[in-house]
Amino acid sequence: MRIGLLTSGGDCPGLNAVIRSAVLHGIKSYGDEFVGFKAGWKGMIEADYIDLGRQDVRGIAREGGTILGTSRTHPYNHPQGGPEKIAKQLKRHDVDAVIAIGGEGTLAGAKRLADDGIPVVGVPKTIDNDLKATDYTFGFDTAISIATDAMDRLRTTGESHHRCMVSEVMGRHVGWIALHSGMAAGAHAILIPEQQVSIDQLCEWVEQVHSRGRSPLVVVAEGFIPENAEEALAGKGQEEDGRPRLGGIGEFITTQIEERTGIESRNTTLGHIQRGGNPTGYDRVLGTRFGIKALDLVHEQAWGHMAALRGTEIVKVDLSEALDGLKEVPSERYEEAKILFGR
Amino acid sequence: MRIGLLTSGGDCPGLNAVIRSAVLHGIKSYGDEFVGFKAGWKGMIEADYIDLGRQDVRGIAREGGTILGTSRTHPYNHPQGGPEKIAKQLKRHDVDAVIAIGGEGTLAGAKRLADDGIPVVGVPKTIDNDLKATDYTFGFDTAISIATDAMDRLRTTGESHHRCMVSEVMGRHVGWIALHSGMAAGAHAILIPEQQVSIDQLCEWVEQVHSRGRSPLVVVAEGFIPENAEEALAGKGQEEDGRPRLGGIGEFITTQIEERTGIESRNTTLGHIQRGGNPTGYDRVLGTRFGIKALDLVHEQAWGHMAALRGTEIVKVDLSEALDGLKEVPSERYEEAKILFGR
Amino acid sequence: MRIGLLTSGGDCPGLNAVIRSAVLHGIKSYGDEFVGFKAGWKGMIEADYIDLGRQDVRGIAREGGTILGTSRTHPYNHPQGGPEKIAKQLKRHDVDAVIAIGGEGTLAGAKRLADDGIPVVGVPKTIDNDLKATDYTFGFDTAISIATDAMDRLRTTGESHHRCMVSEVMGRHVGWIALHSGMAAGAHAILIPEQQVSIDQLCEWVEQVHSRGRSPLVVVAEGFIPENAEEALAGKGQEEDGRPRLGGIGEFITTQIEERTGIESRNTTLGHIQRGGNPTGYDRVLGTRFGIKALDLVHEQAWGHMAALRGTEIVKVDLSEALDGLKEVPSERYEEAKILFGR
Amino acid sequence: MRIGLLTSGGDCPGLNAVIRSAVLHGIKSYGDEFVGFKAGWKGMIEADYIDLGRQDVRGIAREGGTILGTSRTHPYNHPQGGPEKIAKQLKRHDVDAVIAIGGEGTLAGAKRLADDGIPVVGVPKTIDNDLKATDYTFGFDTAISIATDAMDRLRTTGESHHRCMVSEVMGRHVGWIALHSGMAAGAHAILIPEQQVSIDQLCEWVEQVHSRGRSPLVVVAEGFIPENAEEALAGKGQEEDGRPRLGGIGEFITTQIEERTGIESRNTTLGHIQRGGNPTGYDRVLGTRFGIKALDLVHEQAWGHMAALRGTEIVKVDLSEALDGLKEVPSERYEEAKILFGR
Repeated sequence: MRIGLLTSGGDCPGLNAVIRSAVLHGIKSYGDEFVGFKAGWKGMIEADYIDLGRQDVRGIAREGGTILGTSRTHPYNHPQGGPEKIAKQLKRHDVDAVIAIGGEGTLAGAKRLADDGIPVVGVPKTIDNDLKATDYTFGFDTAISIATDAMDRLRTTGESHHRCMVSEVMGRHVGWIALHSGMAAGAHAILIPEQQVSIDQLCEWVEQVHSRGRSPLVVVAEGFIPENAEEALAGKGQEEDGRPRLGGIGEFITTQIEERTGIESRNTTLGHIQRGGNPTGYDRVLGTRFGIKALDLVHEQAWGHMAALRGTEIVKVDLSEALDGLKEVPSERYEEAKILFGR
Repeated sequence: MRIGLLTSGGDCPGLNAVIRSAVLHGIKSYGDEFVGFKAGWKGMIEADYIDLGRQDVRGIAREGGTILGTSRTHPYNHPQGGPEKIAKQLKRHDVDAVIAIGGEGTLAGAKRLADDGIPVVGVPKTIDNDLKATDYTFGFDTAISIATDAMDRLRTTGESHHRCMVSEVMGRHVGWIALHSGMAAGAHAILIPEQQVSIDQLCEWVEQVHSRGRSPLVVVAEGFIPENAEEALAGKGQEEDGRPRLGGIGEFITTQIEERTGIESRNTTLGHIQRGGNPTGYDRVLGTRFGIKALDLVHEQAWGHMAALRGTEIVKVDLSEALDGLKEVPSERYEEAKILFGR
Repeated sequence: MRIGLLTSGGDCPGLNAVIRSAVLHGIKSYGDEFVGFKAGWKGMIEADYIDLGRQDVRGIAREGGTILGTSRTHPYNHPQGGPEKIAKQLKRHDVDAVIAIGGEGTLAGAKRLADDGIPVVGVPKTIDNDLKATDYTFGFDTAISIATDAMDRLRTTGESHHRCMVSEVMGRHVGWIALHSGMAAGAHAILIPEQQVSIDQLCEWVEQVHSRGRSPLVVVAEGFIPENAEEALAGKGQEEDGRPRLGGIGEFITTQIEERTGIESRNTTLGHIQRGGNPTGYDRVLGTRFGIKALDLVHEQAWGHMAALRGTEIVKVDLSEALDGLKEVPSERYEEAKILFGR
Repeated sequence: MRIGLLTSGGDCPGLNAVIRSAVLHGIKSYGDEFVGFKAGWKGMIEADYIDLGRQDVRGIAREGGTILGTSRTHPYNHPQGGPEKIAKQLKRHDVDAVIAIGGEGTLAGAKRLADDGIPVVGVPKTIDNDLKATDYTFGFDTAISIATDAMDRLRTTGESHHRCMVSEVMGRHVGWIALHSGMAAGAHAILIPEQQVSIDQLCEWVEQVHSRGRSPLVVVAEGFIPENAEEALAGKGQEEDGRPRLGGIGEFITTQIEERTGIESRNTTLGHIQRGGNPTGYDRVLGTRFGIKALDLVHEQAWGHMAALRGTEIVKVDLSEALDGLKEVPSERYEEAKILFGR
């Protein structure tokens, strides 16, 4: 078969491991040929692609990002998009099937295309760990690793100055990165979108820790919103649905803590370093296994399905399972983390 | 309650995270007190312990090793061992329950003690990932991380000289570390105890890669034994069952490759760096969750049980489940890795 | 002798290595005793100190921050400060000499105290590398290491999205961290306080790189001010001399680039992670050697002097040499870096 | 000009940074063209080379090894070697000058060629830091960084088991890596080729530390030979001068310590991981500056000279200065380190 690969949406460490293993598995086990569409669905729609041979994927699994590039183009909103034109385009270029690697938006596009008769399978990608139907995806572990390392650093400088250190991490809609990195780093408070916590409660935790002579560490997901703070956080542009985009929560709560408790406080917004750079071993293994499975799904003609992790197994699931709402942090996981909070 | 903690067997990154969270959870949620037995079962039997308060566990989750020390003392073979003496000793020191953190041997001891009426629960620890009944334990991910980083380094020097690089990793009885680190690093051959591979087959893979102008990377678990090589590897002392201990497999196959193929080859035996140093975020989270669960098991009086990971959940399992033979690498996982081998 | 140690000013990886080696050298070579003043000059003035024995410094060289804590207290501005009161205080507590480890402010205080008869020697500390009279100090190399690693990560995500990535690093008055980390990471533009660069020139460099299909990386020191931008950057409080404190330069130029070139751009302000965490081997060696030298200076009664690095040697220099203005990036070093800029 | 680059001898992190900056500087500042000879002098002699343009050096500074490959071929011993043939070869391929990047052997070859009229300049490379005439070269800092990290890991496992940990590091003729990494990691004994230390003395240090309840860390350079141990270490092939090659010193002293003191001991030979992988920021900056200087030397026609680091400056030195014997660890540096030894 001649198979097209694409990566779409935000980049994520581990994408290249998926590409590598799918290509090597296809060449070796099935005699497949591969093309890589550039910049996501855009490359597929516009037939902008490169051939992917064994040499092209050599040594890429340890590199962050994606060798194919990525974008947020949607396969139905593009002028040349939609199932008929895409079907013709694929036929013209002799592409028999497509492996789409991406997050919720990408997989929704893949599902719709599959329903419309395009031979597409998916590989789930989300640095935020917000996709249902898979225990984890690649990228999340690397983000945890980077954030944990950064917080270890923040703690030593915090303790030298007896300051409160705040660390804003990724997670616009869910708090998984905050939860895991905060638990790993021994955070004294973790603030996530799924859980309402008042600034008063936060300040109480901070003061408990500070009064014991320690330097409080607060981890906050970018999407956390304290009561009555929407106005203060607004003005960062618009979300796709037109609501005002909120931002700067780390800076906001740092100021609040300092004003209310008098404890010197500093914010560090980790930002884009959380999604770049060499993937961890964990993410490379997971990406590699996903790539192998995706290729097998193609040969099963399991259109509209994707690879997923369940326990230690890589399984086939229907894309609709992954699209059934965001995977939020359950209350019991937050309660577990709270054991380490405050005093 | 007054609860004793001990770590036994080989050390492993993540042990301190277990200790920290069990202690903090107990103090905060149940008003427990804690003692830490020094050097494993030995400290319990000889009543050599320290008090463990909030201050004693501060900041330890990011440190490798175990603040309690460890040893290979067995609770039944020690002169003051056995259930009656231990029961008296625990009573004399007002210890109501014991959390034993360790591998197969430790958990077997814990199980037998529990069967003999001692209030013991377990936490599984194995850097080799060879325990059944839990998807993973802490320490394994850190070992993979260290080994993968080391192999990334070996590849650049190998490629500069067009050499074959061999890396011997831990795994006396199972090949999990070799499998995952080799898959992450893009190894061209992975040799594990569970799978028979001839030196001829290995040399074929090495030559395929070398002839394409690349530097072959071979990962070998310390417990792998090629056909007819037992004699060559013997003379490293004795196993506990009296058989000769084998060793130096990395060096052995490096010499074999060089002699048979003429390709310049170098071995690096990673050794003890694989089990030391700061745990990864993954292992800290897992250790933290295990510690919390173990404390809950104590309050459930679930003697003879342990914490285990299943998917994303921490569950209670009977210790006997973990002791039902080693968890070996299944054939299908090896076949998956073989996709990346050789040419 | 009985010697007091203190760390003052911003913390910096390597401080603990200085403390360790001074203490071990003193105990072993001279039979000295040590006290550690807490939180800088404050602890000395208020006689808030701990005894420092061999056990207290064990294993600390690999930890970031300072076990003694630090503050910005000035020995002449404190109510109990000034040479007479300090002399009495030291006498009352049997402290024969003081080793003050700190930056420009600290060393200026030490110099003035030494001139006023207090037996003080110095150890230079500056994460920014802005002290004259020493080639480097500890902390700078760790900062470069952290910033370089962060930029490696930014590059992979930048290249996947074909974005311009901006990284704001420390350096309020000098551009050493920007220069070295930018050179290491292959930055396409480096902006430092010592060199005037227009936004037009910057955009030209960015466009050159972007038009070749690459992702531009811009490194900017926090103290860089483009022409006519003071107003835009103001409102971050006041400098000590009353001028408005400027801030947010990374965010500012990111917006400028995006507006003027239309190239999607993202800023990451590395912040406090640059000064925390485990020191590099380089900084541990340098801190260790500085500590040994400082102790020798005490026994030479070289009051008013400090340890310094010249080439590969640790030498004695008068504190006044270090206080003769900031060490700025010379033009020729900037020209050297410019070779890598833009196209 | 049309300039040929080559890397020769053992590989070393930082080589690619030299190549990158020389090429970019030449293209931008002088309009030069570049070729890269493959596998050291061999590629030059056999005219096996690739063109090196801007695209070919993009992003390579952060990669270990050398994109040109390397070998130990000597320009006078090769059948087509010697100055006349080389001069003709260079002329035939329009190469106007050669930049040779390598260690003692390479630079000796470059010097002899320059004396024989070939337009060659050098860049010093030695992971062992054994070259005179330059304070440091790239690669050494990366090796220190890797070895220090490994020893940090060994310490936590050592302390958990109360074992003596031995770490064998590179350094066949000089002890710089052992000295710096040992000092950084807080080693209780450092053994280097330049200093005679008896096994008795070593065991005394180890016992002092162990008796204080700690885990001794011993760092040994591969070229250290204790009294009367030549026979025990022999049988590893031959040195170039025909003497038996010695090896396995780490294993040897581990056995000695265990036998004489009864303290459980473990050796880890770090091996090739010390020379591979991503260079540190320090080494990338140094390599970059060396590359720029080397290109300037070419345009100065400073044949027979090389770039060197003196303090913070990159200077021009005659190759003969670098070839005037090995740079050994001076006694005073060893005495400095001994302050941290034993008790």
